[in-house]
Amino acid sequence: MADDVLPSHPRAGEPVFDLHLGGKMATVPTADVSTRDQLSLAYTPGVAEVCEAIAADPELTRHYTWVPNTVAIVTDGTAVLGLGDIGPAAAMPVMEGKAVLFKQFGGVDGIPICLATTDVEEIIETVVRLAPSFGGINLEDISAPRCFEIEDRLKEALDIPVFHDDQHGTAVVTLAALVNALRLTGRTPESTRVVISGAGAAGVAIAKILLAAGIKDIAVTDRKGVVSSDRTDLTSAKKALAELTADQCGRRGTLAEAFDGADVYIGVSGGTVPEEVVATMADDAIIFAMANPNPEVHPDVAHRHARVVATGRSDFPNQINNVLAFPGIFRGAFDVHASSITEGMKVAAADALAALVGDDLSEDLVIPSPFDPRVGPAVAAAVADAARRDGVARI
Amino acid sequence: MADDVLPSHPRAGEPVFDLHLGGKMATVPTADVSTRDQLSLAYTPGVAEVCEAIAADPELTRHYTWVPNTVAIVTDGTAVLGLGDIGPAAAMPVMEGKAVLFKQFGGVDGIPICLATTDVEEIIETVVRLAPSFGGINLEDISAPRCFEIEDRLKEALDIPVFHDDQHGTAVVTLAALVNALRLTGRTPESTRVVISGAGAAGVAIAKILLAAGIKDIAVTDRKGVVSSDRTDLTSAKKALAELTADQCGRRGTLAEAFDGADVYIGVSGGTVPEEVVATMADDAIIFAMANPNPEVHPDVAHRHARVVATGRSDFPNQINNVLAFPGIFRGAFDVHASSITEGMKVAAADALAALVGDDLSEDLVIPSPFDPRVGPAVAAAVADAARRDGVARI
Repeated sequence: MADDVLPSHPRAGEPVFDLHLGGKMATVPTADVSTRDQLSLAYTPGVAEVCEAIAADPELTRHYTWVPNTVAIVTDGTAVLGLGDIGPAAAMPVMEGKAVLFKQFGGVDGIPICLATTDVEEIIETVVRLAPSFGGINLEDISAPRCFEIEDRLKEALDIPVFHDDQHGTAVVTLAALVNALRLTGRTPESTRVVISGAGAAGVAIAKILLAAGIKDIAVTDRKGVVSSDRTDLTSAKKALAELTADQCGRRGTLAEAFDGADVYIGVSGGTVPEEVVATMADDAIIFAMANPNPEVHPDVAHRHARVVATGRSDFPNQINNVLAFPGIFRGAFDVHASSITEGMKVAAADALAALVGDDLSEDLVIPSPFDPRVGPAVAAAVADAARRDGVARI
Repeated sequence: MADDVLPSHPRAGEPVFDLHLGGKMATVPTADVSTRDQLSLAYTPGVAEVCEAIAADPELTRHYTWVPNTVAIVTDGTAVLGLGDIGPAAAMPVMEGKAVLFKQFGGVDGIPICLATTDVEEIIETVVRLAPSFGGINLEDISAPRCFEIEDRLKEALDIPVFHDDQHGTAVVTLAALVNALRLTGRTPESTRVVISGAGAAGVAIAKILLAAGIKDIAVTDRKGVVSSDRTDLTSAKKALAELTADQCGRRGTLAEAFDGADVYIGVSGGTVPEEVVATMADDAIIFAMANPNPEVHPDVAHRHARVVATGRSDFPNQINNVLAFPGIFRGAFDVHASSITEGMKVAAADALAALVGDDLSEDLVIPSPFDPRVGPAVAAAVADAARRDGVARI
């Protein structure tokens, strides 16, 4: 019967499928129930006393349940990695991976919730109904512009942290790397001209955090060029984006026109930028080409025209990886029982990440490694402090 | 700063609150992501290949996610233990306890889901939307008669096991104990007269499983006496129950009238039965007084009038404890990727439990101990076999 005992599966022998066999996570009891006495405390009849105490004072949830350390990782499967709308079932391996990272790098218990609906109203009402079970909500891989409304309305409805990692996690790590790249190239935020390609969730959030950090000259591009108010084809989300960015500095026109003389390029689009366009950037240019697995500008090309190059890939220096941010951000928010994640907490996370590089700063080291053990604790501490400053800490 | 280091909490020093500090469960990665190579398999870019494979063949979910081993433990907090409608937040300690038991006794990953709605339609649609995330649904502590419709409609809507433990778990363990008690007292199902007090979730499910097991003379009572069709105050659920039970055998009248000459009393009501009423039962009577923490008939009283006495309490012999059933039932269902839990699977679970007592059968041992290590595997094997017989096994 050896065949029954050996694990067999359809894609056996392929390392990525072997690793995924049985999934990537499990639950584990933290209370021992191996004796009758333990069982009668952890379950009936003892547990009734804890339930009654919480019914009388819901604040006790924070002490006597796992809720305050849990985050629901919620997706509808419409924008999974670069794969697009592959549905909730196929999104699960990403959500499990996220849960693994939450635990490993932040000590946070993440629960994947893949929803069988893509309707904005249904997603919102479902998450609101689930909320008593979780200490926070991490929205994941929900397509733009739906993700903006879902996040805004959930933040309004709930008194626990709501965070769309594809927006804000990416923005925090990008800002951290950019802070160091500007320092290395002797630029100030006020004098820096930025082009962002990609007007989806990540592009919008990056534009907003750069504005908050003092950068004033930002042009966001989509497939048709710079997102500016002179265009007649803008959605309401893109119109609002244009007003915040290109309109402020008079940028308009094609991608190539935007690149001409730009200091910084941030790619979150998945397209490709021709080398002759890249070549028109300013001296000591900064290129963050973050599309995965194919950066908008290959690092070999980028290095011919830029001084600092970062990607989303682990096989090149300067990986812009969300795992640098989200575990520590939720750890810090949970540590002070924060009611939300503020702009101040995000900027504090970016500053803490940037500061970790310290005197090691170089063209090939503008952002720490995800495996630097200082990352999670440093981000968490900075976020907790910012939560207190912003008045959203509850302990 | 010792005060900051020592765990401090509002009810420190009370054993049940000390045990509950921080909750009773956690998540744990089962895939190692401590190197760059592992991270690139478990998360981007490697995970994309697994997502694409599942998008092309959703059946692969079964191999490469944790979904097929997970059960959502869903409550709205309306009927928690004997505490009643204490709401979703206060229900959490019970749901976590359940998750601990699922894992410890069945190797099943249970996720507590406490819903901020008590509306039947909203509960149903919410669970349907969550379903891609879970391998099964365990409904818990939802008040009758709402629980019946919720369970029925979810079973109809979903192709994964849906199980209301307060009904069916209790019914399975009760049947197991009763099978042995009848054997001990030399009764056949056909000749046995049963009184069940309590026409809620547990009472209805027990009546139905006893009927399925061949018992024909059953009177279910509520606060107003036997639930029979001559009454004018019955809800539609109770009318249906009357037609299945008391009407079939001509029972009607008061609780005392029902007891007179009865062979078996099963209490799932939480009330109290006076000793003079208990005294009218048949010789070699069987009393299962399952209310917690106060049995409907105290065991000391019951023993004066009955040969076999069982309760829901761990400090008396013959504990009717749901933990004997639900972990093994889901283990067995998951082992064969069952699309539902059939009546045949429930009866098989009861028979397997009863059989474990074997030659040790005595007045004080009609049901195994929850800590008997044979229980989970025996129930799981019987349930998996029954799933194959009933045609709901998918592997």
